[in-house]
Amino acid sequence: MDMSILLYDLAGQDPELRFSPYCWRTRFALAHKGLTVETIPWRFTETAAIAFSGQGKVPVIRDNATTVSDSWAIAEYLEDTYPDPTLFGGPGGRAHAAFVNAWADAVLMGGIARLIVADLVTIIDPKGRDYFRSSREARFGMTLEQVQAGREDRLAGFRDSLLPVRLVLRRQPWLGGAAPSYADHIVAGTLMWPLCASRFQLLAADDPVAQWQDRMLDLYGGLGRAAKRA
Amino acid sequence: MDMSILLYDLAGQDPELRFSPYCWRTRFALAHKGLTVETIPWRFTETAAIAFSGQGKVPVIRDNATTVSDSWAIAEYLEDTYPDPTLFGGPGGRAHAAFVNAWADAVLMGGIARLIVADLVTIIDPKGRDYFRSSREARFGMTLEQVQAGREDRLAGFRDSLLPVRLVLRRQPWLGGAAPSYADHIVAGTLMWPLCASRFQLLAADDPVAQWQDRMLDLYGGLGRAAKRA
Repeated sequence: MDMSILLYDLAGQDPELRFSPYCWRTRFALAHKGLTVETIPWRFTETAAIAFSGQGKVPVIRDNATTVSDSWAIAEYLEDTYPDPTLFGGPGGRAHAAFVNAWADAVLMGGIARLIVADLVTIIDPKGRDYFRSSREARFGMTLEQVQAGREDRLAGFRDSLLPVRLVLRRQPWLGGAAPSYADHIVAGTLMWPLCASRFQLLAADDPVAQWQDRMLDLYGGLGRAAKRA
Repeated sequence: MDMSILLYDLAGQDPELRFSPYCWRTRFALAHKGLTVETIPWRFTETAAIAFSGQGKVPVIRDNATTVSDSWAIAEYLEDTYPDPTLFGGPGGRAHAAFVNAWADAVLMGGIARLIVADLVTIIDPKGRDYFRSSREARFGMTLEQVQAGREDRLAGFRDSLLPVRLVLRRQPWLGGAAPSYADHIVAGTLMWPLCASRFQLLAADDPVAQWQDRMLDLYGGLGRAAKRA
């Protein structure tokens, strides 16, 4: 008996506002596989609801009897369980996508956080705001407003950090080559975070990265395009 | 009639000193394929010697009647012409290796240059020093000594920039996964540049990146280990 895959998906105070960079990687991957998905809105405080996964963060998926957490582990599970269409394009594609994932986590995530982290407080569920603020302020060693201050002046530096993506897009239409792959989901999923959670515009309209993002938003029946924004 | 592949390889004043980050990517790739190679030492001023390639930079390879320049184009040529053992691990591996290549070019090259560029002047062929200095000083907008000044204080920032590599190596032994791939050649080849051209130590001994580099130096009969250093 096949059922939809359940995805626990970070939501804002508005349950329609889904802004997790990791959940978006998973949503693109599920859509790429053509799988039917039911998303369950989840807030930072609702650790009990995903305790069955043995940890406290989303994304978590349930596929019949199987539970998988962590966006990378989910991508590997989907590729192994539903091989076609491929997410990675073979074993080398999987190994090398790990580098794209690491770059997104090490460089892109922090770069975006320093531009929009105070905006996040205004959209997340009020119950989670104290936790969110105190945990992030401890990490940055300053208030979220101090982290975000002067972002207009730092925007050029953030855009420079996208140069590896820009160089690849000079060579090929997608990070996956001739067609989108999980590498595209990683970067585009991460960029869904500021797109949905903030009104601050990170990309210049004439940036090839913005043009690629625009094409990403149209994939899978316009999944990204239809996403609710703050 | 098969012959060795000829590789025009950047050399220092000492013809045994080979320090080009792009030529090293190619040397690792050729060794990975098990191809017999004859390297021809080449200096920045010797554009006439590679005019047959239609451009003025190394690496250039000649494989019987075929000439290929640019390290990425050479890797693709080798993969298409000599498929086994694979450099990319399939089409996804090739597409995603383009991101590793772009990251190395956009981030790693500049980071290394700012630490060792003045050292390079002392090892390159005297005929090329004026060209090297004036072209690089124009690019940086300052003297090479000014670029390199304070490098001890900037070393931690450089090491931070390697975090994507470090994160991948937590997951798998090589950037290529269970076995080395051209992704390993790209990063290790780029790191051969400071290793051969400077005595400034870029990596801390206890860095997993240094331990991976150590294993890279042993591959292919110790090709990297045997390289002459400044």
